[in-house]
Formats: sequence, structure tokens, C-alpha cells
Amino acid sequence: MRFGVVARRDKEAALKLAYRVYDFLKVNGYEVVVDEDTYRCLREFDEEDVLPLEDFDVDFIIVIGGDGTILRVEHKTRRDIPILGVNMGTLGFLTEVEPHETFFALSKLLAGDYYIDERIKLRTYVNGENSVPDSLNEVAILTGIPGKIIHLRYYVDGGLADEIRADGLIVATPTGSTGYAMSAGGPFVDPRLEVMVIAPLAPIALSSRPMVVPATSEVGVRNISLQREIVLAIDGQFYTYLPPETEITVKLSPRRAKFVRFTKEIYPKYTLRIKKKF
Amino acid sequence: MRFGVVARRDKEAALKLAYRVYDFLKVNGYEVVVDEDTYRCLREFDEEDVLPLEDFDVDFIIVIGGDGTILRVEHKTRRDIPILGVNMGTLGFLTEVEPHETFFALSKLLAGDYYIDERIKLRTYVNGENSVPDSLNEVAILTGIPGKIIHLRYYVDGGLADEIRADGLIVATPTGSTGYAMSAGGPFVDPRLEVMVIAPLAPIALSSRPMVVPATSEVGVRNISLQREIVLAIDGQFYTYLPPETEITVKLSPRRAKFVRFTKEIYPKYTLRIKKKF
Amino acid sequence: MRFGVVARRDKEAALKLAYRVYDFLKVNGYEVVVDEDTYRCLREFDEEDVLPLEDFDVDFIIVIGGDGTILRVEHKTRRDIPILGVNMGTLGFLTEVEPHETFFALSKLLAGDYYIDERIKLRTYVNGENSVPDSLNEVAILTGIPGKIIHLRYYVDGGLADEIRADGLIVATPTGSTGYAMSAGGPFVDPRLEVMVIAPLAPIALSSRPMVVPATSEVGVRNISLQREIVLAIDGQFYTYLPPETEITVKLSPRRAKFVRFTKEIYPKYTLRIKKKF
Amino acid sequence: MRFGVVARRDKEAALKLAYRVYDFLKVNGYEVVVDEDTYRCLREFDEEDVLPLEDFDVDFIIVIGGDGTILRVEHKTRRDIPILGVNMGTLGFLTEVEPHETFFALSKLLAGDYYIDERIKLRTYVNGENSVPDSLNEVAILTGIPGKIIHLRYYVDGGLADEIRADGLIVATPTGSTGYAMSAGGPFVDPRLEVMVIAPLAPIALSSRPMVVPATSEVGVRNISLQREIVLAIDGQFYTYLPPETEITVKLSPRRAKFVRFTKEIYPKYTLRIKKKF
Repeated sequence: MRFGVVARRDKEAALKLAYRVYDFLKVNGYEVVVDEDTYRCLREFDEEDVLPLEDFDVDFIIVIGGDGTILRVEHKTRRDIPILGVNMGTLGFLTEVEPHETFFALSKLLAGDYYIDERIKLRTYVNGENSVPDSLNEVAILTGIPGKIIHLRYYVDGGLADEIRADGLIVATPTGSTGYAMSAGGPFVDPRLEVMVIAPLAPIALSSRPMVVPATSEVGVRNISLQREIVLAIDGQFYTYLPPETEITVKLSPRRAKFVRFTKEIYPKYTLRIKKKF
Repeated sequence: MRFGVVARRDKEAALKLAYRVYDFLKVNGYEVVVDEDTYRCLREFDEEDVLPLEDFDVDFIIVIGGDGTILRVEHKTRRDIPILGVNMGTLGFLTEVEPHETFFALSKLLAGDYYIDERIKLRTYVNGENSVPDSLNEVAILTGIPGKIIHLRYYVDGGLADEIRADGLIVATPTGSTGYAMSAGGPFVDPRLEVMVIAPLAPIALSSRPMVVPATSEVGVRNISLQREIVLAIDGQFYTYLPPETEITVKLSPRRAKFVRFTKEIYPKYTLRIKKKF
Repeated sequence: MRFGVVARRDKEAALKLAYRVYDFLKVNGYEVVVDEDTYRCLREFDEEDVLPLEDFDVDFIIVIGGDGTILRVEHKTRRDIPILGVNMGTLGFLTEVEPHETFFALSKLLAGDYYIDERIKLRTYVNGENSVPDSLNEVAILTGIPGKIIHLRYYVDGGLADEIRADGLIVATPTGSTGYAMSAGGPFVDPRLEVMVIAPLAPIALSSRPMVVPATSEVGVRNISLQREIVLAIDGQFYTYLPPETEITVKLSPRRAKFVRFTKEIYPKYTLRIKKKF
Repeated sequence: MRFGVVARRDKEAALKLAYRVYDFLKVNGYEVVVDEDTYRCLREFDEEDVLPLEDFDVDFIIVIGGDGTILRVEHKTRRDIPILGVNMGTLGFLTEVEPHETFFALSKLLAGDYYIDERIKLRTYVNGENSVPDSLNEVAILTGIPGKIIHLRYYVDGGLADEIRADGLIVATPTGSTGYAMSAGGPFVDPRLEVMVIAPLAPIALSSRPMVVPATSEVGVRNISLQREIVLAIDGQFYTYLPPETEITVKLSPRRAKFVRFTKEIYPKYTLRIKKKF
């Protein structure tokens, strides 16, 4: 088995734990690669084991950090490599274990005593072309000027779903339902479901409600106010400004995120984390 | 082909249109039955054709009225008979045509030029026994005393989803997502999805969010405040008071509602009707 | 100075602390009366000091319990007697000190080192007559049958404010803004303001928003669906069923609630308690 | 009596009606000035009557346009001149009459048959200095990068009211309560009240509720995430980017907006306009 190790770059404890994980796996005879960015922050890893995330070709990636670190890995890796997330963030909807459980979790992983939790991702097409990362949480189509509403129409499978004047529109996966979509009034969605949440952000018309649609649907978004630049934000990580007349389409990605889990538990595991946001 | 005819009882125009439909179908040589309650309000139907809804054994039922009339038919019929709904109500999320389109719709139906839209229903078990109608819209578990909150725990597939102090809890189908569940803050759900919406009603803790879970899940509800009687309300039609310690379980019903549709359109057909609620 | 002592009846610790407070004040030479209901639960008080709340004519009432106990005192006393609330409940928006601070608080009170926080109350007129207690938190006009919506019109100073189909309507004081009105979507209101919050409960039309109006306004509520009995609930304590055609009017009461406070602090004192609801 | 005339610049009908109003008042012997920007779009006005809004020193301004045009007048004029708004916009919360009522309204105004509706405004201090226009609707403190949350603390009269991670924070007048603040979940506020609404915009923590505080309060806002630039938006008209560490304070302005009204009606006048947003 080959492993990858990635750490949150701004937290020394995460970098140190990453080194201990790396060392533990090497000592046990496994091949281990370390992500370039992690290495840049802690030079103790063997330089020969350093690779950009894009070139990771391993069986598992051990990610030590928060949901942001996992999203970075998801955006950069080119294969659907299972991730074991160790929580060094604040909330940790995606991570599986706490730092003190790291080595116990690794031994279960090595013993094959785990379960792979597959999560859908969304692919975004800008004028028919896909050149942005797939989103594990959400695609947000936002006003380019904070506080200046945009006027959007959105379509589900070609039918007009709604027309809104709002700060933006969020199209989220079940995984992302506890994030930005929830701040916009969206529901919690069971991660086993293959659906999308479409949630308008601060719409003028309060009759514009969040919607839940099949993940196999095609969601089209058109900007009506052609003077207003829009921002496309993927998972709160990747940002790009787009000209007003851009056509945006969101569909199910052929790729999936894979997470190492030690239980199939959903309730209260994820619903409790919502409570912790408060 | 055999037909059934049912009308809203409190609207003369509905009863009269029902008679015209009945007459039209008879004249065209079809067997037609009329529901007992409709007959009680308009005595012009041939007494030999009158039957209680429970004994309807026809190919299609023409329902002239609002969603309430359709829900009454759904609760009483014993087979999943396709319904053609003619809107004589206010909103009409379930009906398909307006009164002036009735005979055009009938001729399309007779010509086989239609589509059957199947909708899931929920079955409720009270202490393990099912003795209440299946719900096409929602199951509501409510405080027995208006304004006195109840304290509930609810479980999805055995895992604790949340614990609430609230006016009640709503478990809705996609069909019911535009009804009571939406008043409680729930999302619009695409009717093609096989999911349930679980929405707390005026919960004290604002972190108690609506949830969307697989329709194949088992939702268990337990009343913690054992002095408080609870009310079980099915589709806003069927009501029963239950003792505090009752165990309520909601599951997918083996039965489905079937609606005659002339298009497969969902957007903006249903999302527009949400706007009309305002 | 004369004191009254009242305790939550279902909590032994509250009753015992009440006795210690009673004893402390007596030993220090003050006249102390005990409420009849408290005495019924703990017979140690001197029988001569026992009085119904309605006959309390003291300078301060020490209330040991939760907000429910304070509301009971407010509903029954006939003069606006300042209350020092010791929190033996869950949230305690109205109470001022925790049990371990009781005697420190009493000595500050005896030393005159306190501040009186006055809160407005609402008076409800049923067909022009006032026969129900004033509300410190809220007046709720609710459906008599849980789950069956009522159809209401409400007026502010004679002008139609909105027409709703809903589970009910809540008219709250600033003090009550953190209670039932907040569950219905209402805002937190600074207790220094003389305003009312009017919040529809699970309205069908999502355009029916909570409103904030001057406390000097007259709020009129009319039930349009004349078959539906309604429930009038005052502070979640006093309940009465009313016939459908009843006219309900809510106005500022000439009475005020008075609370002993040791700081004038509002923020984050009360906003933090909202967080604790989660 | 001296009059000013201002029109929406992008609507020919508004400009033409402005000219007719100007002409009517001149013919009737009144002094009339026209705003520079209006003149730039319609050259028919007498050049001698043209003035920048900043120099308007008249008894009344007739504004033909939508709320945006009125906000422009409010931001630029240096005295609190009563405005008669003729609605050539979409919603028109601030305007008083429809175009066909213009000359009837003018004759009532000339006859002294009107009422002045005074509305509070908010003044914003950036690091203690006021260099931005007063807001009639709202002050919005927003993330400088759409979709990247900011971390704010806000204080009411020096006490910490809440700490949020959100898209921003809105501080609105009663007049602005039907605008951006309502999209963020805030209540309708009776325009007679002297209060502010503080509403977090898409906060992560759903326990962060809109608040209503006295207009005499001082609202302080601090940006905690010191890498994030913020945007200050006044009435959706005036925008400025501010460095992360900026201290923002919002207080009641000594200035008021004054509107010519022909009735003192509030309900259902304004609440109905909320319905029209849908």
C-alpha cells in the first residue's frame, strides 16, 4: 500500500503530526509521499518523497487539518483517492478522527477494518467548458460587487425553476448542505442521497425557496442583468470573475470523493456537528 | 374502461361539472361510478352507479375539486387508481387541469395521450401497528394543547437525528414539501425524488433544521414529556389524539398515488404555484 | 422592608433554598410572607406567614425557580412588586442570579445597591373585556385544533396589517421576543424598547413577515374562518378556548413588571442566553 | 414657495413627466430648480434653473423615479427638504403617488393639504470620522470578496451583541427594514419607531438572529479576520472598500428624511408592498 500525507500549512501541530504519521508509515515499510506545500512548511520530510498533489498516485491520503485542507486535496488530486481526515480544524464535517485517535485509526486502516464513504461532486461548465475544479461542497454564483444584487434565472433540466434578485445562488451537494447552503436557509441533506440543494442567497422575494433536485439534473444559471459581473466560487476555495453574459451549468461529476470511515453512522454524527456551529 | 367521479361537496359548480363529466362518459358508453358523498350533495346521478370510495374498482377517477378532495380520495380508495384532478380549489398542487379544460383533458385521456405521475406515500405505525391512512403530503406529530410545546426525539434508521422542544414535527413527502413542511421552513423537493423532509415546527432551538432523508429510511419519533398528549395529523385530514408514551414510526408505503398528467413538466409548473401562495 | 418568597414547586432544591432565604430574612428582622403554593410543597414555613400571591403586599419578591415561576407570580400578584429571580430553571431570561449568588444578591438588595428594570406588559381584550392576565412574554392566538390552520386578519391601529392562514399569531413584548416569537422567526428586541413583535406562526404565505410596531399601538385580531375555535394563550401559562367570532385586541398594559438587577447590562447578557438555547 | 425637480435618468417617461411638472410650476409662478443630472438627460429645461443637488435650497423636491432616485437625492442634498415621490420604479416603498396622480398631488401640495412624514437616518463613522453619506435604508458591512466570509464582532452601546462569521452585517432604519435587512431575515418595522435593525447576512451560526435596538444606541462593528478587506455599502448606492482593521460605528443621524404624504396610513400601505415583492 502507498500513502500520501498532507497537512494544514498554518498550524504547527498539524505539520508535526503529519511528520509523525509519515515516519510511522515509513518505519512500517510503506511507501509514503508528502505534498509539496506541506513540505514547504516543514522541511523534515525526505525530499525524495515530496510530490505535488496533482501527481499523487497512492492508495490512501492521510489529511491532517480541517475541511479546508481536505477540499484543497480534492481540488488538486487527479484520481479519487480515499482520504482519512484527522481533525485539526474547527468544525470538521469531513474529517473522521481527532488527533489523539490518529495512530489507532491508522492501525485499523492497515488492518482493513474500515469503510469507504463515497460522496458525489458537482462539475461546473462555463459556457459549455469545464475548466474549474469539481465541487465537493458547493458551487456559488455570486454578485461581483458585494451588496449589489444580481438578477438570475435558473433552470432545472431545461425548465425555469425560478427568477431571483439576490446576492447569489448556491448549488450544493449533500456534503455541502451543512455549509454555505445552510447559511442561506437550506436543509440538512442525508449524505447517502444523490441530490443537489439549490439555495438563493438573500433573495428579495421571500417566496424564492431552497430546492432539492435529483443530482442527475442539469442546473442552468443565466445572469439577466448584463452589466453585472459575477463571481463563481467553488467550495469557498477557487474563485473566478466571469463576464455578465456567461452561461453556467452544474451537473453531477463522474468523480466522487472517498472518505475512510470507521462507522456507517450518520445520525447523530453529522446533525450534532450542526449544533456545534452555534 | 371504467371511471369514477368525485366532486368537492361544498361547491355547486364542482358538483355540476362532475355531473357533466359523468354524463359525457356514460353517453360515450363507459361504465361510471360516483362516490356516495358526491351523490349525497347532488341527487341527479343514477343511484345504481353510486358507490363508497372504498369500493371503487375503476381505471381512472376524475376528481373535481381542490387538493383536499384528492387527499380524501387517496385516503379512502383501496387500490392505486390514477386520478385526473380538475382544479376547483385555491392552489391546486395536485390537480392537473382547470375546469374549462375538462373535456379536452378527457378526450386526451380516452385517446391514451397521457402520462402517469407516481408519487410516494408514507405509512405511519402507532406502537408498531398501522391503523391510519397513508399520507400523500405529510404526517404531523403535534402538541395536543396548542401553544404548549412538546419535547420529542426523532431517529433516522435508529440513529438519533435531533431532540426538539417545539410545536411538533412534520414528516413530508416531496408532494407535501410545498405544504405544511414549507410553512415550517422546509425546502421545495422535486417530485421525482424518493425522499422525506423532516421539519420541526417552531422549535425553541434554531439549530434544529429541516432535514432531507432517503424515503427508504425509518423515521422514529418519541415523546419525551410524558404528561403531554400528542396529536397525529395525516395530510391535514385525518386526526387522532395519542397518549404521551406512544411510539410513532414513519416509513415508505408500498402504495403510491398515481396522477394523470399531460406533460412531464415540473419546472416552473410547481415552483410557480409556490409563488401563488403569496 | 417586607419580602415575599416564592419557589418552583417541582424542584426540592428550589424549595429548600426558598426556606433558607425566608429564614435569613426573618432572622435579620424583616417581615416575610410565603406563597400558599410554595407552602403546600414544603411545610416548614411558619403558617402565619403564608398568603396567596394575590394578597402579596410587599416591597420585593424573591423568586427561586425558572421563567415559568416568575410568570406565575406576574400573573397573580395585584401590584407591580419588584422581583429578584434566582435561576433554578433551564434558560432563565428573567432571573438575575444563580443559586450560589443568592445571599450575596440579598445583601446587595438590602444595602440598596441595585437597579429596577421595568418591562412592559400587554393587556388582552376579548370582545372588549379584559378578563385574562396581562402578558409579560406574549399573547398567542392559536388554532383550536392542532394542525388545522386558522384564517386571521390583523390590524394595527385600525389598519389591516396582514391576512394569514397559519397555525396562529403571536404578539410579544421585548421580554417575550426571545421566546415563542423567536421560534416563529421574530427578532431579538432590546428590552429598553417600548414595542410589540407581531409574528405569524407557520403561515402558508412566506411573505407574511414578523413585524415590530409601537407598544402604544392597538393590535386587533379577527378570525375569518368562523367554524374554527381559537385558543388564547398568555405567556404559555394561561389558556382559554374562544368561539370563532371572538374579537381580540392587544394593547399596552398600564402595569409593568419590575426586576431587581445588579447591572444595567443588556449585551451580551441576553443575546448570550439565545445562544444557550442551542 | 420654491421647488426642485429631479427625475430618474434612464427612463424617458420620467424625464418627460419631470418637464411637465417643471413647466406646470413655472406657469403657476413658482421658482423651480432642476437637478444637473436630470438636465443632462433632457435639455428642455431652462439652463438658468439648473443646479447640482448639493445646492438645492428649496421648499419641496418633486422626485419622479423609484426609491433609487430618492436615495440619490437624500445622499446629495445638504438640507432636509421634503420630497414628493412619484413612482416610476418597480416597488416604490418611498414614493407617494403614481404618475397619473402627479398633478392632483401637486395641487394638494400647493393647497397645503399634506402631511410631513419624517424618517430617521443613520450616520456612519469610519475610524471615528464621518465622510460617507447618511443612510436612509441601511449601512451594510460586507465581505470584500464575495463568498469569503468575514468574522465580525458587533457591539450595542459598548456591550458585545454577537460575534459572527457571515457574508456581512446590515444595520437598517425602519425605512430600510423592507429592503436588504428583510432579505437577511429581518422583520418589518413600523416607520414611526426610532429603532435600528441589526441583521447578520448568511451567518454560519443560525443562532445569530436579527436584533432591534434603540436608534439612540451606538452600534460598533469590528472586523476580526484582519486579512479580509471589507466593503461599506450605504443604501446600495455608495460603496467604499476599507482596510481590515477599520472601526465602524453607526449612530442616529441628526438629519431626517422628510416625505410629503397625503394620508397617515401605514397599514396596509407598506405591508402590502412587501407582498408585491413576490
